[in-house]
Amino acid sequence: MRFRIDRQSDAPVQQQIADQVRAEVGAGRLRAGDRLPAIRDLARELGVHRDTVAAAYERLAADGVVESTVGRGTFIAAGVTPASPDRRELVLSPLVERVLAWERSLPRIADVSGAVPLHALVPEPGLYPVDAFRRALGKVLAEGGASLLGYGAPQGHPLLRKLLAERLGRSGIEATADELVLCHGASQGIALALRLFATQGDAVAVEDPTYHNVLATLHSLGLRPVTVPMGDGGADLDALERALAQPDVKAFYTIPTFHNPMGITTPLAHRRALLALAARAGKPVVEDAFQLDLGNGGKLAPPLAALDPHGLVVQLFSFSKTLFPGARVGSILARGRSVQALLALKRASDLADAMPLQAALAVLVESGAYDRHLAVLRRILARRRKALLEALDEEMPAGTRWTRPEGGYQVWVELPAALDSAELLPEAARRGVLYAPGQQFFCDGRRSNGLRLTVAMADEAAAARGAALLGRLVRERLAEEPRLADAASIHV
Amino acid sequence: MRFRIDRQSDAPVQQQIADQVRAEVGAGRLRAGDRLPAIRDLARELGVHRDTVAAAYERLAADGVVESTVGRGTFIAAGVTPASPDRRELVLSPLVERVLAWERSLPRIADVSGAVPLHALVPEPGLYPVDAFRRALGKVLAEGGASLLGYGAPQGHPLLRKLLAERLGRSGIEATADELVLCHGASQGIALALRLFATQGDAVAVEDPTYHNVLATLHSLGLRPVTVPMGDGGADLDALERALAQPDVKAFYTIPTFHNPMGITTPLAHRRALLALAARAGKPVVEDAFQLDLGNGGKLAPPLAALDPHGLVVQLFSFSKTLFPGARVGSILARGRSVQALLALKRASDLADAMPLQAALAVLVESGAYDRHLAVLRRILARRRKALLEALDEEMPAGTRWTRPEGGYQVWVELPAALDSAELLPEAARRGVLYAPGQQFFCDGRRSNGLRLTVAMADEAAAARGAALLGRLVRERLAEEPRLADAASIHV
Repeated sequence: MRFRIDRQSDAPVQQQIADQVRAEVGAGRLRAGDRLPAIRDLARELGVHRDTVAAAYERLAADGVVESTVGRGTFIAAGVTPASPDRRELVLSPLVERVLAWERSLPRIADVSGAVPLHALVPEPGLYPVDAFRRALGKVLAEGGASLLGYGAPQGHPLLRKLLAERLGRSGIEATADELVLCHGASQGIALALRLFATQGDAVAVEDPTYHNVLATLHSLGLRPVTVPMGDGGADLDALERALAQPDVKAFYTIPTFHNPMGITTPLAHRRALLALAARAGKPVVEDAFQLDLGNGGKLAPPLAALDPHGLVVQLFSFSKTLFPGARVGSILARGRSVQALLALKRASDLADAMPLQAALAVLVESGAYDRHLAVLRRILARRRKALLEALDEEMPAGTRWTRPEGGYQVWVELPAALDSAELLPEAARRGVLYAPGQQFFCDGRRSNGLRLTVAMADEAAAARGAALLGRLVRERLAEEPRLADAASIHV
Repeated sequence: MRFRIDRQSDAPVQQQIADQVRAEVGAGRLRAGDRLPAIRDLARELGVHRDTVAAAYERLAADGVVESTVGRGTFIAAGVTPASPDRRELVLSPLVERVLAWERSLPRIADVSGAVPLHALVPEPGLYPVDAFRRALGKVLAEGGASLLGYGAPQGHPLLRKLLAERLGRSGIEATADELVLCHGASQGIALALRLFATQGDAVAVEDPTYHNVLATLHSLGLRPVTVPMGDGGADLDALERALAQPDVKAFYTIPTFHNPMGITTPLAHRRALLALAARAGKPVVEDAFQLDLGNGGKLAPPLAALDPHGLVVQLFSFSKTLFPGARVGSILARGRSVQALLALKRASDLADAMPLQAALAVLVESGAYDRHLAVLRRILARRRKALLEALDEEMPAGTRWTRPEGGYQVWVELPAALDSAELLPEAARRGVLYAPGQQFFCDGRRSNGLRLTVAMADEAAAARGAALLGRLVRERLAEEPRLADAASIHV
């Protein structure tokens, strides 16, 4: 399309640009997935400032007409169709509007072809035991047949629950199959666990930074996050105590093992202190143990659920990071009435899960294939983490800090304090390295010098190359603007 | 276990019974799934009234300790474990308590061995194309491999969306693949569609009676149902107009085709009038088209989504009743910004669905296997409905009315007015026929002379046998208590 700016018009230029996109969409000439000109190109073509074009695109994004992706560009959004003249715009729930606004505030990161994907927290597809899973699916359907294709039990496949309860036992958690509720990925588990205790207008204590999709879930449920700052040793316990003392705070969501995004694992003393606080406040703790199976060696502190005589911990587990996400199977460990309550919420949400997938996972677990896969995956991840950490040692300028996780995928890097990792990201993407900017993990979406790197999709060479590209960029940026280095050296 | 009643004790007998069950559970001698004595047996043994035992069991059910199932008995509930002395009872969200209370109010219907299952709304497992599905799964995993096992797109598998959009086109609905969001069964679709427009404290207009799990979903979301009475020709439009005029009513949930539980399909004029009301009120309509594919012949009025120039209709579809429920695949048709909003809610709820299942369904649809299955299923259901309706003609006493659906599974029967179908159910189960009592489909859970019969799991002979058993029971009950017949004859 060709844009035309009418300098005589009363309408601001950014509105003229937005209106022309809308008109093209309305006429069906721009359709979902079509790409808009790059901001810099259009600004040059029209002879206007880049901010003007950016503002027009942001307005269109706010209205759901376009979507932007770092390093890839701006596209007409899915679901956008030529508006019939009779079409009415429906009033959406304020919670939905809040989630949409929050989503728009996130930097969108594309898989820029060839860039090192240090942003991804998805296990590498090349490692998935696809054939074993396909055979397991074939086997359970050949044997179970139609009995697996009815409505499954809301609690999930009995054999998989039994096997998972046994596995929890090895982590020191006393649990029966009756105390496990399987769910549609740990993501659903998070939503169900929060809804168990909190309802619209309530608050939930969360670590800051935390897994960003939890923030989407909180917004979608009308729950207010109360932040508990993360230090090097885990959540600040004084802040946690203050948070739990608030009557409207109904639960604490925490990732004590291989924290996302920070990668750290809290020590035993921290865990005991945390549980003592929760017990004193009488508040439940939602322990997201999504990477529990990804430790190397036996040095890790026991999960919170193993240290909890009061039944305060609701623990989430997932196969998404240890096997693959596409089976959409997670589990929730709960005690007493919470089990009944989870089943009621599950029935009210989607009745039950697909039993063939759970039955096939049970085959992989029972046969030992899952454990063999874990052993390989842990070794690979340990080598990759080592390569990444060594490259960071080598490449990152003074004033940069990062965590040294003992397992899992992610490493948290704090750049010299005056750098904004979100602001740096487009340039990093152009140079060939992607990361997850810290901003998306903070409850208030604030500017952050932190960023998350992962070794999920990057082997040792790629991880080293990515760290080198990042290190060079940061060093150049600091050299360009000595002011930044000064600020950094003051801060660190 | 042996119960002991202490007649000298101050504690009421029902509390003594409940306390002894709790003590056995606490000591680990009664465990999840263990059966309590039948109410009549225990009452006889203890020499107390049945109501006393029933009250004790109800109290235990209210506390989540036991679960009762009509025709099967009372069992220690799943998740109930020996209470550690340190165990704290967590405070659950009031919405969860509401869902639990609502669930307890439902009659639970067991598959009494040998009884004719006229209560079931689950397609008969013997009809599932298991082998075709197994082959399709094997094929998509062999071809797609790991690419199907990552996080799928929240919108769902592109080919299945394209095929479903084409199928909607055949029903007269203009829709693109971009306007479809796949979901984890239409049950999830209901929850997502309601959340799109309504938030805790809001209200949603629903037909009365309606699909009972919608009521669970409403309770779980803190949404108030505003009832629109069902007549023989569909929802009462005057009542609907009044409901939609209420500012806090944010949407209308309706099942215009093969209504659940009534089986009726509204005529074109009713549909147009309904949409005109919605347009005047500017309120969205959630059209549950879960049995849209189960009509015989071309006489059905077009779906609401085909008659909707304003984009007010959000339409739900499901494979659960046309193929099998175990794939957990449904779809939501929405327009404009609602598509973006549904994707945001989906991400915040469970990120995405399992792509292998959707891809396998796409194979069944694209190859024609789904349409061939539908053709067979429709013929079978038509024969079964005919057999059931003929048997009702023959067996039911005067004063009984029922619907004559042109497709789908369910028939709604209204017994002579003074009979309570829930009260009658245990005796019907003992005699060998099960049905879904009307009470569970009414928003206020009121006593009802209505009941739902289905031909999902009963072939022609079984349907006829079930109707005969039911007819005999109703005739006997009326003969026993002539008062009831009088009341009935006044009402009908």
